[in-house]
Amino acid sequence: MIPFVSRAKLSEQQVWIKYLSAAMPDEVFLPFADLTPEQKQQCDIAIVANPDPNDLLALPSLKWVHSVWAGVERIMNELSSPPFSIVRLIDSNLADTMSEAVLAWTLFLHRDMATYAKQQAKQSWIQQPMVQAKDRRIGVLGLGELGRVSARRLVNNGFSVAGWSRHPKQIEGVECFYGEEGLALLLKQTDILICLLPLTAATKGLMGQKNLSLLPLGASLINFARGLIIDDDALLSKLDGGELSHAVLDVFVQEPLPENHPYWRHDSVAILPHISAPTDPISASEIVATNIKKYRLTGKIPPAVDPIRGY
Amino acid sequence: MIPFVSRAKLSEQQVWIKYLSAAMPDEVFLPFADLTPEQKQQCDIAIVANPDPNDLLALPSLKWVHSVWAGVERIMNELSSPPFSIVRLIDSNLADTMSEAVLAWTLFLHRDMATYAKQQAKQSWIQQPMVQAKDRRIGVLGLGELGRVSARRLVNNGFSVAGWSRHPKQIEGVECFYGEEGLALLLKQTDILICLLPLTAATKGLMGQKNLSLLPLGASLINFARGLIIDDDALLSKLDGGELSHAVLDVFVQEPLPENHPYWRHDSVAILPHISAPTDPISASEIVATNIKKYRLTGKIPPAVDPIRGY
Repeated sequence: MIPFVSRAKLSEQQVWIKYLSAAMPDEVFLPFADLTPEQKQQCDIAIVANPDPNDLLALPSLKWVHSVWAGVERIMNELSSPPFSIVRLIDSNLADTMSEAVLAWTLFLHRDMATYAKQQAKQSWIQQPMVQAKDRRIGVLGLGELGRVSARRLVNNGFSVAGWSRHPKQIEGVECFYGEEGLALLLKQTDILICLLPLTAATKGLMGQKNLSLLPLGASLINFARGLIIDDDALLSKLDGGELSHAVLDVFVQEPLPENHPYWRHDSVAILPHISAPTDPISASEIVATNIKKYRLTGKIPPAVDPIRGY
Repeated sequence: MIPFVSRAKLSEQQVWIKYLSAAMPDEVFLPFADLTPEQKQQCDIAIVANPDPNDLLALPSLKWVHSVWAGVERIMNELSSPPFSIVRLIDSNLADTMSEAVLAWTLFLHRDMATYAKQQAKQSWIQQPMVQAKDRRIGVLGLGELGRVSARRLVNNGFSVAGWSRHPKQIEGVECFYGEEGLALLLKQTDILICLLPLTAATKGLMGQKNLSLLPLGASLINFARGLIIDDDALLSKLDGGELSHAVLDVFVQEPLPENHPYWRHDSVAILPHISAPTDPISASEIVATNIKKYRLTGKIPPAVDPIRGY
């Protein structure tokens, strides 16, 4: 018996339980709310999607939890030293979907779609200067699974791509930078910046006034990671001052984005309702099934999130 | 001495002459307007960009003209049997740029960018259902150089792609249809239709009421070819009736699109000012140079437009 622990509506939890049950017919899945006190005593694994950490602490036999989300910073932040391992979803489907979103909104900026939409509203027929993809410098922040696949997809579509991560990495066709000095070097040569970093103590507020100022005049930014990585006031001031030309934002400090937030009506901001890479319950359930079946056979917990690094 | 014959402003003609002269330092290029009557007698080649056909008829020694445009239907239509060959630009750079535009606006439709922009205007946070690229059926009309490269680019980015041409073709990973029956089959299974056909007697008005009706409910359309291929009234009525969901139009019967045209203010139409694949004067001049140098050495005119087919 494996509980599904989530703050989502019960109907959404039932969708997950349907796909998880199909992928693991030998296991019984129940929403956390339906567990008897006895069942709570027995659970060694839980599947989680943005859970209330207190629910997890009510499961004393818990050895590990498997998140069906790629980002687990809320559990990590709210539980300082959890008595169980946290395994996050690494879904190549998810990386494909994210890299598609990265390519789509990079092309949105590269081919001036926002400008042409504004021109249409004024019935204005002006051909913007054409920049070739090889002359458009893309900078990808974060070179984990999502960053790596996205950077490669951009290379395959002709862009000039650089990337940055905490530790040195190598990706074919991508100029890789690392560390604090590397970040400054990357930002100074980036026309379109794509943020795919995990949210950790080290990345919170990373794109503030100082680092945004390193971008060339007229650069744009895409945030598909977490809202807290960007300092909203600093970004708004750069957009208002014309130092940055456009921002595509899919993630926000508070979601849904509050009604009166200045981003909503900003001419140079495209708002997306956290849709860059929705988890596919079918492929995610298959990955979770593979991990759980292996654990049942061998007792081995899959590679877990490092509590110090936070990802 | 080679004249540059064009209806463009003299300043634009000078840009072309600059790049052509750089690519062919042994030749002298002059705007048609600057030719002496004696020079007109001598010209055996002309470079053209949307020329006035009467200008070409004033060059009695003309053996062939090299267009720096890919589409030459205006010359073909206005001169019923020209006494010279017409060579159009086949520029792999152009096909790359066009395939990038095809991919960019396919992703615009695939990832619901117009819907999200409308939602932003209403401060509305709604996640649209996610369709995977492999489940999005793209139909490419026209499988010449531009169509083939565009279809392959879409395949490489995960889409399910079919194509249609007058005569049978084979393209790896693309289901190829041909002929009138093939067109109906393709249209019936297309979510996003991309028009890359040449404008000929056979394609003028091809996408009218009857053929648009074959598209599945909610399909979208991208026209990067020529305005006259689509029946504007039929398209507007399908969009207004909700049978088609969106149109991305880069080409129009009259360009610039007239001020009061209903397309301008239509909620389901994205207007582009003929920017899908602007000719790059540098790479185009190099291609023209290669063709002219070969002709000077061998007397061989490059493969010309077939006056019957019209492309």
